[in-house]
Amino acid sequence: MPDDLTRTDLRHPVLELETAAMHRWLSGDPDGYLEISAPEVRYTDPFLPGWLTGHRALAEHDAGLRGQVRADAFAFQDPVVHEARGSAVLTFGFTSWIAGAATRWHCTEAYRHHEGRWWIAVTPWAFAPDAG
Amino acid sequence: MPDDLTRTDLRHPVLELETAAMHRWLSGDPDGYLEISAPEVRYTDPFLPGWLTGHRALAEHDAGLRGQVRADAFAFQDPVVHEARGSAVLTFGFTSWIAGAATRWHCTEAYRHHEGRWWIAVTPWAFAPDAG
Repeated sequence: MPDDLTRTDLRHPVLELETAAMHRWLSGDPDGYLEISAPEVRYTDPFLPGWLTGHRALAEHDAGLRGQVRADAFAFQDPVVHEARGSAVLTFGFTSWIAGAATRWHCTEAYRHHEGRWWIAVTPWAFAPDAG
Repeated sequence: MPDDLTRTDLRHPVLELETAAMHRWLSGDPDGYLEISAPEVRYTDPFLPGWLTGHRALAEHDAGLRGQVRADAFAFQDPVVHEARGSAVLTFGFTSWIAGAATRWHCTEAYRHHEGRWWIAVTPWAFAPDAG
């Protein structure tokens, strides 16, 4: 069993990046995420049959959502960052509210560090059970 | 039956680890995954309200599934490994068949390398849309 070499830091830069991108996403602007996504990014969500691969595929997907996504509020729950040697995997629960109705997700964002910035390389979004 | 089975020329060790662990998992034996999970492992799936954190929590969760999970066949679809500096993020689609009925998943396994071995640090499992 290896030692736990990772750390949890709730002020980790990737959490700040994620929060800023989410603010834009929930205002109908997907560019916040696209600007921090790596060329090789892989994305999926519960509506897709498989993985989208590459920044171009993600940008084409997001183009169809521009101006469409809104929420009144959101929250990250129980975020943890596993960082080691230029990679940082952020995991968290996510809830957004529209007109009082909550939607809950399990979220993973695998970032890699390159030329002084963090880039999202793998980004699967999944529904969590409806908690009412 | 898996007519959409995707063969891959990937020979990355994490894909071999994943395949071996999955064979055991679908025979009711969760130890294959537990033996390659890091102390800080985070796991979630569509049945959990949030993330399980730590090897002990995952082992307790899996204890309830020991001997319960079976499948007649499985396939990994479109696997990709993003590796950089001791981290490897494996993404793939996954289908298992029981009595001809398919269940489809989106899978992400974030591994880290330590002392000559790969360890799973983050492992979210999510449903894919039912493809019929």
